[in-house]
Amino acid sequence: MRVLLTVSYDGTGYNGYQTQKQGNTIQQELEGALKSLTGKEIKTVASGRTDAGVHARAQTVHFDCDENIPAKSYYKALNTLLPPQIRVVKSKRVAGGFDARKSAKKKTYLYSLYQAETENPLKERFSVKLNEKVDAEKMQKTANLFIGEHDFKCFCASKSGVKTTVRTIYEIRIVKSGRDIKVYVTGNGFLYNMVRTLVGTILKAERGKLTESEIKTMLETGERNLAGRTMPAKGLTLYKVIY
Amino acid sequence: MRVLLTVSYDGTGYNGYQTQKQGNTIQQELEGALKSLTGKEIKTVASGRTDAGVHARAQTVHFDCDENIPAKSYYKALNTLLPPQIRVVKSKRVAGGFDARKSAKKKTYLYSLYQAETENPLKERFSVKLNEKVDAEKMQKTANLFIGEHDFKCFCASKSGVKTTVRTIYEIRIVKSGRDIKVYVTGNGFLYNMVRTLVGTILKAERGKLTESEIKTMLETGERNLAGRTMPAKGLTLYKVIY
Repeated sequence: MRVLLTVSYDGTGYNGYQTQKQGNTIQQELEGALKSLTGKEIKTVASGRTDAGVHARAQTVHFDCDENIPAKSYYKALNTLLPPQIRVVKSKRVAGGFDARKSAKKKTYLYSLYQAETENPLKERFSVKLNEKVDAEKMQKTANLFIGEHDFKCFCASKSGVKTTVRTIYEIRIVKSGRDIKVYVTGNGFLYNMVRTLVGTILKAERGKLTESEIKTMLETGERNLAGRTMPAKGLTLYKVIY
Repeated sequence: MRVLLTVSYDGTGYNGYQTQKQGNTIQQELEGALKSLTGKEIKTVASGRTDAGVHARAQTVHFDCDENIPAKSYYKALNTLLPPQIRVVKSKRVAGGFDARKSAKKKTYLYSLYQAETENPLKERFSVKLNEKVDAEKMQKTANLFIGEHDFKCFCASKSGVKTTVRTIYEIRIVKSGRDIKVYVTGNGFLYNMVRTLVGTILKAERGKLTESEIKTMLETGERNLAGRTMPAKGLTLYKVIY
């Protein structure tokens, strides 16, 4: 049978989601726990990888196994074997044709920011400090320029070896609450570093260092050197995968 | 001159605020940084201690020093010497008669809870999981019974050696947002473990395990065995000290 897991993790200190030779990845922790539980080498497929230091509220992962353990029992059993930084919040049986990666229709990432003069030790783990106050409405106005299908090649690290850099962004929602600014980005897929560079670019425009017409030019021509900085990994959380 | 610091800290892994023989306390880190900065042994006085594992958003600490360093420069200088879990967010000169502990009129503590079936790695550091959904309005109704001047002896650990267990609670505010429940407790002072036991007692009543008249009896007679459990340290944050 095929089982789908929903997994939360605090990515601090991990070398990202995907298995690597040097180890210390979420996938290796998950597959190690599956091996301890079942005695078998089980290959898992996630909705996508997350980079070193990136967190997940609801990553999704599928794998095939026999029916000795009911699908709904996997999450509790795996949690007894996983480190506290990783928690399987749900497990359920899915159809054999369901694929955590290929069946995903949309994904939402959350980028968390806060404004303060000094680092806040209660916020630093999962969000990034901004030195200056920001205008959330201005950020939202810039963000809206990215909605739709565009070639996002100027927002991805040059090392990505993807076939196409065209992606669709359905929504960018900027939510301000006191000194916290949360940026929710929903799209049909994301290039390497895309969300982090989009947020850096929105912040660059907020500071008046980039005009609306320059952003339109970037999206039309792929002019890479206008993009804002790639924001730090720790502010990014894979929020939701929509099937 | 006398300087007042406002200090934030992630108390995870620390043996509390107050200096101890075994070390690893916030006070020792602060006084160590002050010694590195000034070359002198400087004694600090905080608004009060916080227990092992308890956090602070805005602890206040005063000390006396000469005028070589401007009061407003202390926070930046100390932050270069402190570990990232501790940040001085503000420093200012205060009158010689001002005392971080004795001049404090009110304090607010925040206790953070969230409802989930499984631990959430993104919330576990600073809040405590509740297995069952809770009715925030019912919690608020119970909380209101504690407002005013009462003898809180049934809400403090028996080892406290205080002169009087009478305290005044000005406000308890329960804020629900999605699955998060935040309990803000403001009083003129708190006994050892008092906020943690108050929250445990409010939750006990929410589950129907304690009636309104039993709570009134507790406050009148000091009947200790009716109190709820002492909630874990990690959910507690010293939120504000009011002068």
